[in-house]
Order: sequence, then structure tokens, then C-alpha cells
Amino acid sequence: MKKNNDRIAIYPGTFDPITDGHLDIIKRASKLFSSVIVSVATNMKKKPMFSTTERVKMIKESVQNIKNVSVDTFSGLSIDYCNKKNSYILIRGLRAISDFENEFQMALMNRKIDNNIETVFLMPSEEYTYLSSSLVKEIASLNGDISNFVSNYVNKKMKEKT
Amino acid sequence: MKKNNDRIAIYPGTFDPITDGHLDIIKRASKLFSSVIVSVATNMKKKPMFSTTERVKMIKESVQNIKNVSVDTFSGLSIDYCNKKNSYILIRGLRAISDFENEFQMALMNRKIDNNIETVFLMPSEEYTYLSSSLVKEIASLNGDISNFVSNYVNKKMKEKT
Amino acid sequence: MKKNNDRIAIYPGTFDPITDGHLDIIKRASKLFSSVIVSVATNMKKKPMFSTTERVKMIKESVQNIKNVSVDTFSGLSIDYCNKKNSYILIRGLRAISDFENEFQMALMNRKIDNNIETVFLMPSEEYTYLSSSLVKEIASLNGDISNFVSNYVNKKMKEKT
Amino acid sequence: MKKNNDRIAIYPGTFDPITDGHLDIIKRASKLFSSVIVSVATNMKKKPMFSTTERVKMIKESVQNIKNVSVDTFSGLSIDYCNKKNSYILIRGLRAISDFENEFQMALMNRKIDNNIETVFLMPSEEYTYLSSSLVKEIASLNGDISNFVSNYVNKKMKEKT
Amino acid sequence: MKKNNDRIAIYPGTFDPITDGHLDIIKRASKLFSSVIVSVATNMKKKPMFSTTERVKMIKESVQNIKNVSVDTFSGLSIDYCNKKNSYILIRGLRAISDFENEFQMALMNRKIDNNIETVFLMPSEEYTYLSSSLVKEIASLNGDISNFVSNYVNKKMKEKT
Amino acid sequence: MKKNNDRIAIYPGTFDPITDGHLDIIKRASKLFSSVIVSVATNMKKKPMFSTTERVKMIKESVQNIKNVSVDTFSGLSIDYCNKKNSYILIRGLRAISDFENEFQMALMNRKIDNNIETVFLMPSEEYTYLSSSLVKEIASLNGDISNFVSNYVNKKMKEKT
Repeated sequence: MKKNNDRIAIYPGTFDPITDGHLDIIKRASKLFSSVIVSVATNMKKKPMFSTTERVKMIKESVQNIKNVSVDTFSGLSIDYCNKKNSYILIRGLRAISDFENEFQMALMNRKIDNNIETVFLMPSEEYTYLSSSLVKEIASLNGDISNFVSNYVNKKMKEKT
Repeated sequence: MKKNNDRIAIYPGTFDPITDGHLDIIKRASKLFSSVIVSVATNMKKKPMFSTTERVKMIKESVQNIKNVSVDTFSGLSIDYCNKKNSYILIRGLRAISDFENEFQMALMNRKIDNNIETVFLMPSEEYTYLSSSLVKEIASLNGDISNFVSNYVNKKMKEKT
Repeated sequence: MKKNNDRIAIYPGTFDPITDGHLDIIKRASKLFSSVIVSVATNMKKKPMFSTTERVKMIKESVQNIKNVSVDTFSGLSIDYCNKKNSYILIRGLRAISDFENEFQMALMNRKIDNNIETVFLMPSEEYTYLSSSLVKEIASLNGDISNFVSNYVNKKMKEKT
Repeated sequence: MKKNNDRIAIYPGTFDPITDGHLDIIKRASKLFSSVIVSVATNMKKKPMFSTTERVKMIKESVQNIKNVSVDTFSGLSIDYCNKKNSYILIRGLRAISDFENEFQMALMNRKIDNNIETVFLMPSEEYTYLSSSLVKEIASLNGDISNFVSNYVNKKMKEKT
Repeated sequence: MKKNNDRIAIYPGTFDPITDGHLDIIKRASKLFSSVIVSVATNMKKKPMFSTTERVKMIKESVQNIKNVSVDTFSGLSIDYCNKKNSYILIRGLRAISDFENEFQMALMNRKIDNNIETVFLMPSEEYTYLSSSLVKEIASLNGDISNFVSNYVNKKMKEKT
Repeated sequence: MKKNNDRIAIYPGTFDPITDGHLDIIKRASKLFSSVIVSVATNMKKKPMFSTTERVKMIKESVQNIKNVSVDTFSGLSIDYCNKKNSYILIRGLRAISDFENEFQMALMNRKIDNNIETVFLMPSEEYTYLSSSLVKEIASLNGDISNFVSNYVNKKMKEKT
């Protein structure tokens, strides 16, 4: 197995849009590893609300003050992307039981395909336990206030969409 | 926080259609609070089988003998509807683990938006643990007998649809 | 089934000792019902850290400013105690999956014995999701700081025990 | 209730496509009962990747060496199909918590409709805990290698589709 | 792997005491297999309320009218007992999430030790979802009525103990 | 928050005794961080089977070939021990739903006491999903073979105890 001192971690996701819960996980990961690449999945089953360019821009705006975090995009399997980036560390946030199961299923399947990649699970702050991009979009579609769940910039972009 | 003697509880949902499990929760809520408003969500992501008018009619037929229960419709967030009705009590039925998680996620998010609304969870009779509107529709679509799960009136209306 | 305008709710438990999470549930219940009786179980399988008298005193200290809350003790089944107090409402706090199962099991069993008693589940503030009397006692026994989890009075009493 | 020495078990599903996890359950069931009919559901809500004929052919290829297993198709409720085949035994595989709930809900509902049918739950080998037809299809669509999850024949057929 | 027409199933447990939920599982198993041996564990970590002889007697009284059910005792691992009885089928009842996990953990561990033994999970009637021997004992100790949960004979024996 | 290039991770536990599942987690952690200290809790509520010295010796024997892993003991809170060792990383293995909840509860409580400590969750290989020290001890006490679950050295030490 690979092992190097320059530990690059990948945090893959759809980030449609990035929430304060995602940002919380990014900050935690940035303290654990040399660098973190937040990477936006471009091939999604469902059409996203925001384009890849928009999603990358919103993340960049959120992480601009965290030195060792960069933003990228990927298509295909996240483990193939890890290898391309010389990383063997996948970051995933765990919130609830359903997360737990889906994440473990994905991590076990990834491990079966490439045993060198290690999935590291981090726990968001308890105030983000309930938070997901889809809930944020649902609330916005019902004219609810989402300012407690996303950054000002994302909130503004959401309003332009709805 | 608001506190009054005339405790109005809201039981929001899609009720597409109302099942014996929903009715069980309505009866329990009607004994705990001064009045219960069963309120049908009109803005749904998926197209419902029954129109709002049909869903309201089926509920009214089911609750006609419970004095302190009325039926209404709402759009937007359920907590905004609560405020409009001078209620601060949301009723939710809890059946299984997946219910538990989704309902808690929704309740925590609601609380973040409006801390005055309290979600009250009630447990249906054990014989309704398995029951959901979507399972009823699935069984009906496979020509199964749903008479044990819905009222005669709803059963008749379901047959007209399939 | 019984139904009256003077809705008395019972919140039974061991409260060994009362935590900020218990207090959060008591406050929520006090807004939903006419009065709430916090009732300390005197017959416990495991020997409690605090005597019944001490546990009652700590609760009284915590709820002294909530007008419609009183403190009592009971032995035997909580549903028998409910009936004695002319109440048909049992309050239970739900925190996590394991709570969910144990509480539902207990509630279903209670319902089988006395179908008139309704169990009402409330959700504590997310910051108390992790909190339990036993964790508080464990942390105290390892010389950890518990001032974020219990009142000053309880903290003082805990220090006298350890 | 029916009871006979010739115990026929039905293993219903969509098998779109059959995975090594399905095959593991089929082998276990074949040792427990006189004969097992693997039966492919023809009326699915979502359009399958493979036609009924293709799905049947892939299963037949997989089970050709297990003497007491046959392959069939069905529409409508699985319990109605059981009765038509003089079977009262439904086989279901259980992998994870979410399986557990969905399967129990379905089994309880089936039992309510026909109390003669017994659902028997089997546990796949731990190496298939993560495996599902939809994950296999997702990995294939992202150009991942699925040779560890399905038979060579299914792998070849998957490649013809993508 | 072994495979024979005379399928003997083992239902191991502590049965301290047998409840209506256990009896429900025994009846279901008796319809699925040639014969069922209900087998009482004699080496328990916690001292049981009833002696092995008493527990066997209560089970015998409950199953006397089911032809293909017998009662026995065992010490050591249940899989070793299976082999001694020429059985390769272990019956387990599944009620709730916590059951699910413990049972799966035990079944996976058993399979690791002896891959020939298959664990078959059955689902009790929904009215027994809440039922366990320990809850029955707890209710009895609080002077509650347990007549809905156990047979008349067991109820009488319980009263002699408390 | 602290942040340094020399990332020391602490893996605390009772290790009574160390199993192949623990060893799997230690190996994974050793690839993610500069060094890993496996630390044995000396103040346990239940009397352990093995003394602190024995438990440390068994771990040392297991990790002797992993360069960046050392073994230590601690009493008190694991987060206080972390600080003493200039570490801000706690390693925990996650196996099942019940693990998930207990571990999250503990991690949230730790975070409340010291927000600088990050808990990192790793997933053991699927073949260790079922494995725990207590199950190993139970199987050994029933004369079962535990050679698939622990090292030869631990197996020998277990036999000396029983």
C-alpha cells in the first residue's frame, strides 16, 4: 500500500449547493491532512440545480480563507479520481443512520475495487446534523428562509434560481 | 414563546390517500389537544394520484364523527401555515426507523427556522406499523385487496382510479 | 377514552441526576399541556447514585421558575401512576435510534396493558442529543468537567458524591 | 394453514441484473427447501436495464448447476404468485438496516393480505453485504470494473448495454 | 454442505420464561421444517428466574399440541448442538433493529466457525413486536398484569416467583 | 485550533483482548497519520479478563512489525490523554449501527468538553464486522474455537485463562 508524508485527502460530492454542513467537514479535514481537494462530481444521475461551474464557484467562495484546500471536478468513480491525484484518502461526512449505511456500502464497494483507498469518516457539528442540500432546496422552493444553512453568496445564488 | 389554553394542533401531510394509519393518529391527537386541523399539502414534488379536492373529501368523510377535527389545505412550509392558524403544535406519526430519521431531520430544520413551533410525535397502533399511502397504491396497482388498509369510501375511490 | 380540558402530563424517569436535556423536555411539555408532573421512579433495578429525596430536590431546584410543573415520586408501573393522577398523557424524550426502539417497545407494552394512556414523544434541542445521566456520571468519575451538561446545583451535588 | 412435505420456496425479485449476492441467497435457500423458484417481476415501476427475457436468461445461466432451482416470471403481488405455485414460503435476503425495514414492512403487509404465506429471511455472506443491482449498474455507468460482483456472463451482457 | 430431506430445525434460547412471542415463532417454524427442537440454554451469564427444569416444563406445556415440536436443553455453542442433533438449521426471531444487529452478529460469527449451519430468520406477528422475557419479568416485578403476554400456566408460575 | 505536520493519532480502548478487528483498524490508522498510539484504558467499570500489563503485552506482540505504532496506557478521559500526548486526533472503528450511535454520542460529548480534539472514524474490513472482544470471550467460555478471530499469541493467553 502507498504511504507518503504528503497526505492529500479528497472530499468528493455533488455540492448542489455547498451548505454550512459541507464547510464544517472541509474545515475538519483541512486540519487532519496536508491538503484537501473538494471535488465536484460532474456526471450526476439527476440534473443538478446549479451547473458544474456554478457549484465550483460557490465552493471556492466558501473555502477561500482555508490555505490547504483547493477545488476541482471529476467524472467517473471517486476512487479512480483519487489515484489520478496521488491521493489514497477519501473524506466523507456522517450525519445519521441512513448516511451511515449508504456511506458504508459505498466505502466497502470502493475497497473491493481498489484496496489502497481508505475512506475516513468525520462527524459534522451537531447543529448540522439535519442539514442537506436537498432539504435546503426544498425549503427554498417553499419560500422558506435558508440564511441559517448556507453562506450569503449561496443564498443569493439560490434566490436567482427560484 | 406562545402559550395559550386553546391548543390547536396541525397534522400536515399529503394524504394521497388517507389510510387507517393516518386516521389512528388523528384520533389520538384529537384527545390530546383542543382541536386538530388535518391539512393537505397542495404543492407536492410528485404528482399525486388524487387532486387536492379529492384528498380533502376523503379525509372529511373519515373524520366526520370526530368533533374537534377539521380539514384544510396549505402550500409553503408547514411552520408558516402553523403561524397563520395561531397554532404552535405540529403532529407527526412515527412508525419505523426511517420515519424517525426523516421526521427528526424535518423537525430540527423547522425548529431552526421557527423556534416557537413544537413537533409532537405520536405512535400509531402496532397494526398500522407497516402502512403507508404509497404501499396502498402499489398493492392496488398489482390488483391486491386494500380493504384492510383504507376506509370503504377510499377503497371505492381507489378503484375508480385504477 | 377519557378526555378533559385539564390536561395533566406525566414525565416519569429516574433522573439520577436531572440533566439539561431533561430540563429541555420539561420546558417543551409545559407549553403543550395544562400541567406537567415530573415523577421520580423509586423502585430501580440498579442502585441510584442519588437517593429519591436528593433526586426530587435537584429537580425542584431546576423547575422552580416554571409555573405549571410539579415534582412527585412513584413506584410500580408508570401507567398505574398516570391513572392515580387522573392523567392519560405520558411524556418521553427521544434522542437517538436506541432511545426510539426502547421507548416504542415500552409504549406499545403500556398500551397493551392500558389503552387509555397516550405516550407523547418530544425531541430535545439538538445540543442535548448526546446527553444522558449515565454519561454525565461516567465523565464525572473520570474527573471530567460536567458544567455544560447539568445545573450548577447538580454539579455541586455531583462533586459531593465523587 | 397449509403444510406439506414438498416445500416449494419462491424467491421473487427484479434481478436487474442478478448479482453474486442474489446467487448466494439462492444457494442457501436451495439447501433449506425441496425446490426454489427464482421469479422475475415483470411489472416494475422503473423501466429495467434488461428485458424480462434477458433477466431470466442471466439467472438461468447462473443457477444451471443447482438441481432444485428453477426460474420463472410473475406479475401482480408475490403472494398471489405463491398461491398459484402451491407455495407458502417467500425467500428474502437481508443485508442492512434499510433492507430490514423495507422487507419487514412488505412482509407484514403481505401477511395481512394472506396469512398463509410465511416470509423467510436469509443472510448473505458478509462479502455481499454491500452489493446491490443498482450499485453494480452505477459503477458500470462510471466505467468501473464489476467483475467481482457479477458472473462473467452478466458482466459481458452489462458491457453490451453500456 | 449437508443436505437431507428430513429437515430438523433448532430454536435455541433462554426462554426465561417462554412468551407468546416465542410460541408464535415456534408455530411458524413448525410449518417450514420437518421438525423443530426448542432447546433451552443451560449455561447463562446471568442467573435465570426459572431453573432449566422449570423452563423446559413451561415450554412443553405450551407446545404440547404441535406434533413436530420437541423440547431439549443444551450447553456450549448452539452450532455445536446443531451438529450433534444432525441439524443444519438455526431458527431466530427478529423483532426490532437491536435484535437485527445482535442476531446478525451472532449468525456471522457462527458461520465463521461452522459454515454448514444456516440461520433462518422469522418475523413474529406484529402484536408481539414489543414482547421480551425481560420486559415481562420487569412488568411482573412492578405488579403489572402479564396475562396478555404469556400463557396461563406461565402466568401462574410467575406469580409463584414474585 | 492546533495544527502540526507531525500528526499523532490516539486509538484508545479496553482491548480485553485485542482482536483481528482492532489490528485491522490500527493498520489503517498507521497509514493515515505520522504515528499511532494504541492506548489501553486502565480504569474500567467492569473487571477485565486480562490485567493492564497483559493487555499491553498482547497489543505489543500484535503491532511489533508496524513501525509508527506504539502502545501506552491511560486513565481518565481519552481527550485529556490526547492533550497530554500533544495529539488532537482520536481514532475509532465503526462496525454496526449500535457502534455508530455510541461512538457518535461519545464523540459529541468529547467535542463539547474539548473542541480541539477531532474524532476520525475508520471502517474495518467487512470480515471483522461481527467481531468484538466480548463475543470472543463468550465463544471461548463455551469452548468454541476462536483461532479465526485473534492472533495465536492471544489465543494461547485466552486458553490459559479458561
